[in-house]
Amino acid sequence: MDRRSLIKTTGLAGVLAAGAAPAIVGAQPAVRWRCSSGFPNSLDTIFGTAVTTAKRIADATDGRFQITVAPAGEIVPMPQAADAVSNGTVECSHTAPFYYVGQDPTWAFGTTVPFGMNFRQFNAWWFQGGGEAQFNQFLAPRNMRYMPCGNTGVQMGGWFRREINTMEDMNGLRFRIAGLGGRVLAAMGAVPQQIAGGDIMPALERGTLDGVEWVGPHDDERLGFNRVARFYYYPAFWEPGASVGFIVNNRAWAALPASYREIFLAAAHEGNNGMMTMYDHLNPIALRRLLAGGTQLRPFQRPILDAAFTAAQRIYSEISGQNPEFKRLHDHYFAAMRPMVNWMRLTEATYDSFIASKLRG
Amino acid sequence: MDRRSLIKTTGLAGVLAAGAAPAIVGAQPAVRWRCSSGFPNSLDTIFGTAVTTAKRIADATDGRFQITVAPAGEIVPMPQAADAVSNGTVECSHTAPFYYVGQDPTWAFGTTVPFGMNFRQFNAWWFQGGGEAQFNQFLAPRNMRYMPCGNTGVQMGGWFRREINTMEDMNGLRFRIAGLGGRVLAAMGAVPQQIAGGDIMPALERGTLDGVEWVGPHDDERLGFNRVARFYYYPAFWEPGASVGFIVNNRAWAALPASYREIFLAAAHEGNNGMMTMYDHLNPIALRRLLAGGTQLRPFQRPILDAAFTAAQRIYSEISGQNPEFKRLHDHYFAAMRPMVNWMRLTEATYDSFIASKLRG
Repeated sequence: MDRRSLIKTTGLAGVLAAGAAPAIVGAQPAVRWRCSSGFPNSLDTIFGTAVTTAKRIADATDGRFQITVAPAGEIVPMPQAADAVSNGTVECSHTAPFYYVGQDPTWAFGTTVPFGMNFRQFNAWWFQGGGEAQFNQFLAPRNMRYMPCGNTGVQMGGWFRREINTMEDMNGLRFRIAGLGGRVLAAMGAVPQQIAGGDIMPALERGTLDGVEWVGPHDDERLGFNRVARFYYYPAFWEPGASVGFIVNNRAWAALPASYREIFLAAAHEGNNGMMTMYDHLNPIALRRLLAGGTQLRPFQRPILDAAFTAAQRIYSEISGQNPEFKRLHDHYFAAMRPMVNWMRLTEATYDSFIASKLRG
Repeated sequence: MDRRSLIKTTGLAGVLAAGAAPAIVGAQPAVRWRCSSGFPNSLDTIFGTAVTTAKRIADATDGRFQITVAPAGEIVPMPQAADAVSNGTVECSHTAPFYYVGQDPTWAFGTTVPFGMNFRQFNAWWFQGGGEAQFNQFLAPRNMRYMPCGNTGVQMGGWFRREINTMEDMNGLRFRIAGLGGRVLAAMGAVPQQIAGGDIMPALERGTLDGVEWVGPHDDERLGFNRVARFYYYPAFWEPGASVGFIVNNRAWAALPASYREIFLAAAHEGNNGMMTMYDHLNPIALRRLLAGGTQLRPFQRPILDAAFTAAQRIYSEISGQNPEFKRLHDHYFAAMRPMVNWMRLTEATYDSFIASKLRG
């Protein structure tokens, strides 16, 4: 029913008499936001989560709060997306905060750090353990806040043209990697390159890269990495539960009606778990296809993991000495992580390992 | 501003002139639902999740969709709550579907089954792998649907007054347990008892129980089980990721405005992950207190896990032979689970186990 034209023809009494329990409610303004995604629209998982979240928000407001999601680079070049949110060029960006470690390494704690938390630990820290307040305190001077809306879980360690058996094999390796993981690999002798998702394949095909990590079987297959490299390593010790989500301009957020903010929060939280369910459902299916197509699975050897762990601790210590915001986030994050790791090795790990022994193959 | 009294005093023109961007929108009726929780209100985790989800829904609708959550037994006795939803006495219940395995064992697949999926696997099956449609097909003749809103993760195996070292120690053990786990323990010689959360302590104190499982350190401490038993076993192989959520009457659901349904779905999904973050944050803290107070941790020995696994497979086969709905759910569930188990032992398990070795203690 078009209530507005009904008012014109019958007046308010007609409106109040029409239909079951009609009501005239507080202002529900039409709001339009633009969202710059950090990802190409070929990725149904990461890009798709921003789109389905925007759809939930639109449907939950009867179409009055519309968020248009644009692929990486369409509104602003991806490296400037955080600045564009900060200065209000766009209201929000759906991206991975650790893409901005070049500005300040503290950004990494919004996504993930080497040898950091897994999916559940990150969510528990963020939503219950004070992580949200800690990280948004870092973003406040930039006039922004972050809301997780998506996670990859522990990622695969990426695609290599030759096997990585010893530390020597890392030497001079030109490897696409994001976030602080690049600094760890550099300390191990590799030459890290931060390249956005859509630009990786061209670099691989030009031969300017020896290897690449992205996310996991489903996304990696979509981007075609299996066509240029054969050895598929695990786990990505630098991305054990990468969070993506909305960086939102604080003025745009404050200007929203209270009920729209509530709907945004619930929908973002839904997307946060929803993207994880997509990966958990799709990755096993894609992995089976990849293995049938000749991909060779390889675990990183323990000495490589040990060396990377040591390098990471040294890097954390160096950055903490120079950057008080990084130190504040680092200390809070790892203090929250340790008791959860110890708890989860009891129930979760014991159970999962028993089940894996029974359902193998 | 009270828009209704404004209309009385100034007429519609006054309403339209008042404030920034006022709008008269489509019908947003006031809706009131009653929700019978399956849990006592002493549990901030499970009972609390229903309350915070109801609050999110109310706030997202500017107070127009109100759901009142009543503790177990307050509106209807807990064992009759599913029937009360089915016949419309209440619009919904926030509970664990496996409380109704006495009616039909198929109910268990809405919560968890022995040697079933963990938290992430259940969500991936439910939201991406067709689990939702499979389970709600079972509920449709009962005029209900289920929406997950909370999960415990892998639970602790419960409290025992004496150690359980061999299968003989299970013999005659009077043990409180929920869902199909009771049938597995009965096959192993125990005497399972299904008792609602609030009634367990009185039974323990009367001496009519030898042991009890509930959820994990935080809830168990609140209910006081550490005061009557010393040995705390892990993992609960019968509850590896127990889902709780809303059982909703289908007529009440269909009568909701479309935008309220969208808000309910998003808020329930938020609560689904939100309860998991509470447990992951609170359980390690409670466990530390319990251990300081004299609780002794014990793992179930491998021969006990193996015997329980074998018993579970035999029980699944027996029930499947008699109950086609159970067989349909069972086959769908375990077909979805196996590839996820194999995928997660690569990245998640390898990473978690490395980190546990580094952050131990």
